[in-house]
Amino acid sequence: MRATVMHGPGDVRIENVPDSQIREPTDAIIRVTSACICGSDLWPYTLMTEGEPAQRMGHEAIGIVEEIGSAVATLKKGDLVVMPFAFSDGTCVFCHEHLHTACQHGGFFGNGGMEGAQAEALRIPQADGTLFALPVGPDDALMASLLTLSDVMGTGHHAAVVARVGPGKAAAVIGDGAVGLCGVIAAKRLGAEQIVIMGRHADRLALARDFGATEVVSERGEDGVARVLALTGGLGVHAVLECVGTDQAMDTAVGIVRPGGAIGRVGVPHYEAVPSSLPLFFKNATVGGGPAPVRAYIEELLPDVLEGRIEPGRVFDRTVGLDGVPEGYRAMNDRESIKVMVKP
Amino acid sequence: MRATVMHGPGDVRIENVPDSQIREPTDAIIRVTSACICGSDLWPYTLMTEGEPAQRMGHEAIGIVEEIGSAVATLKKGDLVVMPFAFSDGTCVFCHEHLHTACQHGGFFGNGGMEGAQAEALRIPQADGTLFALPVGPDDALMASLLTLSDVMGTGHHAAVVARVGPGKAAAVIGDGAVGLCGVIAAKRLGAEQIVIMGRHADRLALARDFGATEVVSERGEDGVARVLALTGGLGVHAVLECVGTDQAMDTAVGIVRPGGAIGRVGVPHYEAVPSSLPLFFKNATVGGGPAPVRAYIEELLPDVLEGRIEPGRVFDRTVGLDGVPEGYRAMNDRESIKVMVKP
Repeated sequence: MRATVMHGPGDVRIENVPDSQIREPTDAIIRVTSACICGSDLWPYTLMTEGEPAQRMGHEAIGIVEEIGSAVATLKKGDLVVMPFAFSDGTCVFCHEHLHTACQHGGFFGNGGMEGAQAEALRIPQADGTLFALPVGPDDALMASLLTLSDVMGTGHHAAVVARVGPGKAAAVIGDGAVGLCGVIAAKRLGAEQIVIMGRHADRLALARDFGATEVVSERGEDGVARVLALTGGLGVHAVLECVGTDQAMDTAVGIVRPGGAIGRVGVPHYEAVPSSLPLFFKNATVGGGPAPVRAYIEELLPDVLEGRIEPGRVFDRTVGLDGVPEGYRAMNDRESIKVMVKP
Repeated sequence: MRATVMHGPGDVRIENVPDSQIREPTDAIIRVTSACICGSDLWPYTLMTEGEPAQRMGHEAIGIVEEIGSAVATLKKGDLVVMPFAFSDGTCVFCHEHLHTACQHGGFFGNGGMEGAQAEALRIPQADGTLFALPVGPDDALMASLLTLSDVMGTGHHAAVVARVGPGKAAAVIGDGAVGLCGVIAAKRLGAEQIVIMGRHADRLALARDFGATEVVSERGEDGVARVLALTGGLGVHAVLECVGTDQAMDTAVGIVRPGGAIGRVGVPHYEAVPSSLPLFFKNATVGGGPAPVRAYIEELLPDVLEGRIEPGRVFDRTVGLDGVPEGYRAMNDRESIKVMVKP
């Protein structure tokens, strides 16, 4: 079968690899019907270092169950399923606490030697706990939005939940990538009255406005902070959704958060320590977040997708086949594309 | 009148200073009946630098209202009051949100040129919003515990609230100073089932056990983390009360917090950036806290003090007059004393 393999910075290839196989009785194999390229895939695409082992890529997919292990009880061949970016057994103490990304028998796809979803098929460990069977067929018109439940929509929602967005609150979303845009959807959905999007790409900002952003701030650093403060009567926002993962973004987050407010960070942090410790302290603000337990959020978000109340699938602005994946990485890295869908 | 003035590291003096005076119509003057030395006073006592202006010291007191400005409406001469370590107007948006330490017209005593409480008297800005009149006389047997409502008990409580301590939870308190000990009281009071105290002073740890600590860990660094993990089935604690303020303590906090858990930090951070950003992220743990809004907590904690359900006043193990204040600093700095009460 064919799969995407990252060999080094800018060196992403489509290769022939051995067919995915059941290894544990709790495994399933899915045939991927749609996958995508994630903003986080761009980190190794730009920063992978000499000597790092080649890695199968992709952690977001919808697919059809092709084979199940002997212990898989809740799925059957032919089911159309969402694959969250992390696998989880669904039964451990953390899964019961709805923190599936801390599962005691879990892990991440397209990472640390695991198979990836930018491929014709892949092996799913802990299939019963991981996969979520959809009540629609593979040609459903909502497929793009359903696909976002595997990562970006759940991740934007996580940022909003951790940032304690609620009715009447002022929120700011740092970053106009696919996760930031889904963060706008999530903030709106949870009742935020004011939603400031911070970004610099006209097409993305237009989409953010469609999704519910009330103001756009394109300045960065101190100027950006000053603009958000000016938009909030000098107080700052209750909720910051930090959807970038750099220390500059976190500095901005601390600068714009209102005293007593909360920052939800969901971009994998590319910094050793959280900056602005002292201002954060004197504001009594909270920093939380991490890999979103998207498996836990599917049930909550799915009805809104199926009934058309949210349209996160609009973040996709390009679709490629497997052969187009390297060009998809380039387009996303050059900010020509917000998010690329892959139809293997 | 006489007051405590810090001139440099180890150089704390009792001096004659001009009598405190009403400057604004919202001011009051209180005659201090009891004050104390705070662990945070030891930071300038050890780290004050050449060229820093001399500073009046002390931010915790109970006193008697001696004079009020023309706009003071809720207090009268002779009232016995608790003075929280921060002043606040009680009417701004943040005071209404019970975050008095972010008051738009507030500030901190014994800091930035403000008068201090280790003195015969001091000026209280925003007296109506700041002072809390007590329903007892100045010779009440509970005076020591009441005095802790000006800072350490409210601060320990804040750490527990931010760390989301609740019934059945596992909590750990880092630091066996007066705030850490009050954190143990707070964790117990909020229903924690397991309370690990991390510290190395036998007298303090014994008091922590009296207050409700279920286990003691005296190892530090990785060994300390390993011990707490062993005590919690490898999972870590739901709630960490970080009552020290060093990056080592915060590293430990991140090491022992359970995935999805929360860290409440109340020691003024003596680090530029919050360490262990990546483990914190992958644990989906939250860091919050800051200067405790003790003014907001007095009403909640006072009944428990008055009815003897909590005894935070037991953290005082020495009482001095004003002349004994320099020796009090030395004793606390040398860890001979947990907390020193000052009777001017």
